[in-house]
Amino acid sequence: MAGSIPKSVQNLIEEFGKLPGIGPKTASRLTFYLLTKPLEDIEKLSEVVGDLKKNLIICEECFNIAESNPCMICSDTQRDKKKICVVEEPLDVVAIERTRFDGVYHVLGGVISPINGIGPENLRIGELIKKLSLGGIEELILATDPSLEGEATAMYISNTVAKVGMSAGKMGDSKVKNIKVTRIARGLPVGGDLEYADEMTLTRALEGRKEY
Amino acid sequence: MAGSIPKSVQNLIEEFGKLPGIGPKTASRLTFYLLTKPLEDIEKLSEVVGDLKKNLIICEECFNIAESNPCMICSDTQRDKKKICVVEEPLDVVAIERTRFDGVYHVLGGVISPINGIGPENLRIGELIKKLSLGGIEELILATDPSLEGEATAMYISNTVAKVGMSAGKMGDSKVKNIKVTRIARGLPVGGDLEYADEMTLTRALEGRKEY
Repeated sequence: MAGSIPKSVQNLIEEFGKLPGIGPKTASRLTFYLLTKPLEDIEKLSEVVGDLKKNLIICEECFNIAESNPCMICSDTQRDKKKICVVEEPLDVVAIERTRFDGVYHVLGGVISPINGIGPENLRIGELIKKLSLGGIEELILATDPSLEGEATAMYISNTVAKVGMSAGKMGDSKVKNIKVTRIARGLPVGGDLEYADEMTLTRALEGRKEY
Repeated sequence: MAGSIPKSVQNLIEEFGKLPGIGPKTASRLTFYLLTKPLEDIEKLSEVVGDLKKNLIICEECFNIAESNPCMICSDTQRDKKKICVVEEPLDVVAIERTRFDGVYHVLGGVISPINGIGPENLRIGELIKKLSLGGIEELILATDPSLEGEATAMYISNTVAKVGMSAGKMGDSKVKNIKVTRIARGLPVGGDLEYADEMTLTRALEGRKEY
């Protein structure tokens, strides 16, 4: 059956199918859609995919992907460098940027996940502590996902920061001690429906309630 | 905000976003997923996209996309050339091939859609009638979509074939007259739930009922 599909078409269906959330049917649909497009459009896509990683580096301050080092965010003098938002992945930075957050970031490069063999040593937590020890930081906002692993990672970082702040005799301890460590709120999503909220979310929403 | 995303990343998000069913969020997710992949994988995708239309031609018998003319299906001697299945698009051929259909195809290249300015003259209906007039065809299976436009197109083809078969004095009329024109069944999808079926589908399912 597959033999009746041209090889080049089959190849693209396979490659599209490797992308997350794209099953064989969607991969076919995308491929056949491209077949209806002029050659220029297809070549444009090919070129843009090929160029994706060109000129991309990792910012040595926040570890986000960037075109310059330090990145545009880290080198922006308008930004409040006293506020660091800790996120899992570069995509999370994009999401938070939409909120007009005016601090800077620290990209961990993942979450603690024993099942996948990822421990704290595989993430950029050491780099974070080092950054905090240098002083000048007032708030550390833990914005990992509200998932089991994201929560564990936030908890781990919070504990580590507390430990470093408490241990006497080390350089920079006092600088770490006064940092306010916060966690983004868990609650009902805006526009959501209370009756459809799961138990955990509702529990968090109640716990996180605020006075008017 | 967008300024903080590297240009090459932004470009790919835009290109992915042009694909059907892929909104800005999915486009971002796909792009950032690719960023986590090794360069070889990304280059492979770029290459496969670029090669998509290379060596592709339109089969002059069935008008499907193919690597050879006639295509592998039309040149397959095992196939029953007396049975022609009429479909809208090349992707429909892929779907029907999964059913182990053993006849051949005729790809219309769309459906009659006055709203989009597509009339019968924009489809390969003339070519179909010509093919039928040459003789040797026993059954014409109309497998356009069970949509408003697909039904109208099937109806139009059925009427045209009947008209050609009736008109006396023309070449090939008698060859067209005896062709059995069929339409694929409309009914409840296998594995579906009767109570969720829409009125039209249920009406069709009842109309199309068969004796055990």
